[in-house]
Amino acid sequence: MQPFSFEVIKTCAQTGARLGVLHTPHGDIETPCYMPVGTRATVKAMSPRDLLDVDAPIILSNTYHLYLRPGHELVREAGGLHSFMAWPRPILTDSGGFQVFSLGDTNRVYEDGVEFRSHIDGGKHLFTPEKVMQIEQALGADIAMCFDECAPYPSDEPYTKAAMLRTHRWAKRCQQAHTGHDQALFGIVQGGMYASLRIESAKAIADMDFIGNAIGGLSVGEPKGMMYDMLEAMMPFMPPGKPRYLMGVGSPDCLIEGVIRGADMFDCVLQTRIARNGLALTHFGRRMLRNKEFARDFSPIDENCACYACKNFTRAYIRHLIKAKEILAAQLLSIHNIYYTLHCMKEIREAIKEDRLLRLRGEWAARGGMD
Amino acid sequence: MQPFSFEVIKTCAQTGARLGVLHTPHGDIETPCYMPVGTRATVKAMSPRDLLDVDAPIILSNTYHLYLRPGHELVREAGGLHSFMAWPRPILTDSGGFQVFSLGDTNRVYEDGVEFRSHIDGGKHLFTPEKVMQIEQALGADIAMCFDECAPYPSDEPYTKAAMLRTHRWAKRCQQAHTGHDQALFGIVQGGMYASLRIESAKAIADMDFIGNAIGGLSVGEPKGMMYDMLEAMMPFMPPGKPRYLMGVGSPDCLIEGVIRGADMFDCVLQTRIARNGLALTHFGRRMLRNKEFARDFSPIDENCACYACKNFTRAYIRHLIKAKEILAAQLLSIHNIYYTLHCMKEIREAIKEDRLLRLRGEWAARGGMD
Repeated sequence: MQPFSFEVIKTCAQTGARLGVLHTPHGDIETPCYMPVGTRATVKAMSPRDLLDVDAPIILSNTYHLYLRPGHELVREAGGLHSFMAWPRPILTDSGGFQVFSLGDTNRVYEDGVEFRSHIDGGKHLFTPEKVMQIEQALGADIAMCFDECAPYPSDEPYTKAAMLRTHRWAKRCQQAHTGHDQALFGIVQGGMYASLRIESAKAIADMDFIGNAIGGLSVGEPKGMMYDMLEAMMPFMPPGKPRYLMGVGSPDCLIEGVIRGADMFDCVLQTRIARNGLALTHFGRRMLRNKEFARDFSPIDENCACYACKNFTRAYIRHLIKAKEILAAQLLSIHNIYYTLHCMKEIREAIKEDRLLRLRGEWAARGGMD
Repeated sequence: MQPFSFEVIKTCAQTGARLGVLHTPHGDIETPCYMPVGTRATVKAMSPRDLLDVDAPIILSNTYHLYLRPGHELVREAGGLHSFMAWPRPILTDSGGFQVFSLGDTNRVYEDGVEFRSHIDGGKHLFTPEKVMQIEQALGADIAMCFDECAPYPSDEPYTKAAMLRTHRWAKRCQQAHTGHDQALFGIVQGGMYASLRIESAKAIADMDFIGNAIGGLSVGEPKGMMYDMLEAMMPFMPPGKPRYLMGVGSPDCLIEGVIRGADMFDCVLQTRIARNGLALTHFGRRMLRNKEFARDFSPIDENCACYACKNFTRAYIRHLIKAKEILAAQLLSIHNIYYTLHCMKEIREAIKEDRLLRLRGEWAARGGMD
């Protein structure tokens, strides 16, 4: 049996949405899926058993961060990322392409790769496609991503095109350098906010026949409508038989809009980041639990949620924890926000199954859940 | 049936140690016992389910902190501390006597009570025995402590004696003000580092016939030998049929030395505080997991421990989390340190049962576990 395969179980009659299953060496993932982000080999403030309890099917971890600390060779010695962080289910590692541009203090792009400075100690490093493949193979995730160049927003068309063409050449080099068969390699489509480039890139990446295809360079500061336009333009050229991963996108509204346009996989740090600031995603919109209005509110974070935090604790208690700067505030809100987002995805999958995805979007909008 | 009772099941043949059970409205506690400290209605970095998983039989929370934030009336509105923090097992609240002296920016002692300034906003507050009983009854723990005056170390004999006598008068006032029958009130013995005062105080508090008796004012900076001398001097005057609680004491060596001298209950913030600094208590002494020597050490925190952290993670991983300032480091080390300490107490209880408590102390010392 193949270590990786993707089955499309159903295609939505009214939208581009699909219901599928992605098979990996560490288990099956029902799609569309949301992947919690464990940047430094930990989903912030959550233990692996918390993640199993909310039933996260797969998590993402960051190549750039793990390369710098603790180092990919150390992770390899530990038996790979699954063993290092004690996570038994699938893992996807990004390629660091986004981080070397957004976090590296200064970076220089060459045809060979990107030179950047560590955000930790300022040390100089070079990422090439070959180097990144070495790192990702040492990390040993189920799914690795190609090294790409993510053009910032806004960028002019000539620069965006040059970055896209380099991304294609690097994708080829990644494919050649990636030798492991127990790890799937996904290509990444770029092209900025130019529909014609997006289409060109989707075709070029499709031609390379990766196990899965990702959409990079979106949700980088552009208006959401622009992102949706890009998705609509390129999606017809993204192979339907392969998983489509919309990188770095994951607020509830973007999840359902992305699914409607044909994306199958998502990841986003929003959930755990806002949790640490006291902000909860709920069926009725975002709630800032730090606010005084919740001081004596003895109802759960989200009255429609069945997560550990909502079943056991009140807004008043969580506000107290936030005000007292107690770690448990971050723990409970992270559990809630991740559970809630996974629950949204479950609702989406059920709606696709029952041909009522557009109705679900309307329901979310009506109750404030798109905020 | 009485809501509270204490059974001494066995008295050690060679030492002052006893095996017992303390019955409370929220369940039975096998003694000797260690109580994790949940200062602000949360044991730092641990959820109630983490605490149930390590099988903590009872936790302690702090009256001073909860009075200042979120306020005892808010906790009462929430249904009391058990409901507020979602902890189903017994809780003990201290009286704030120690905190108003150690944390209050400035404090003035009157016969009526202590005036102090909040460590949060500098606001002026007055704690009297009657006020503290009101607060503790609003919090609704299973066990409340009398309001006492804890003399600092060192203090001269006249001051220590005056503070002790005030503590006795306040204990009477607490007893009169404490009206709830679903909450046990414990008296507190003071007397500083003066054996004659300790004896006098033990007798005076014993005469008041509290449900349990505590030993305050130790482990306040004095050498450990001095604390043990005080325990030995006073213990003959602490009623044997009632639980004896040694307040604020709980490093593994002090636990076994305290039990040998007849103490039944302990609490200590050490476990969770050092956890947040990267320090683990182990069968073989303390391990600073932040240290470089553990960078590639793929063994568990403590090779003899069966806690969640030790069963799943390595020193190398935890060191990585510490270096990366990830919250999970504090979560895992807190789980470990609390589990380990509860396990020490279990070893102690088994050793009492089998008349080998002094041998156990020798074994701990030989393996480095007394450090």
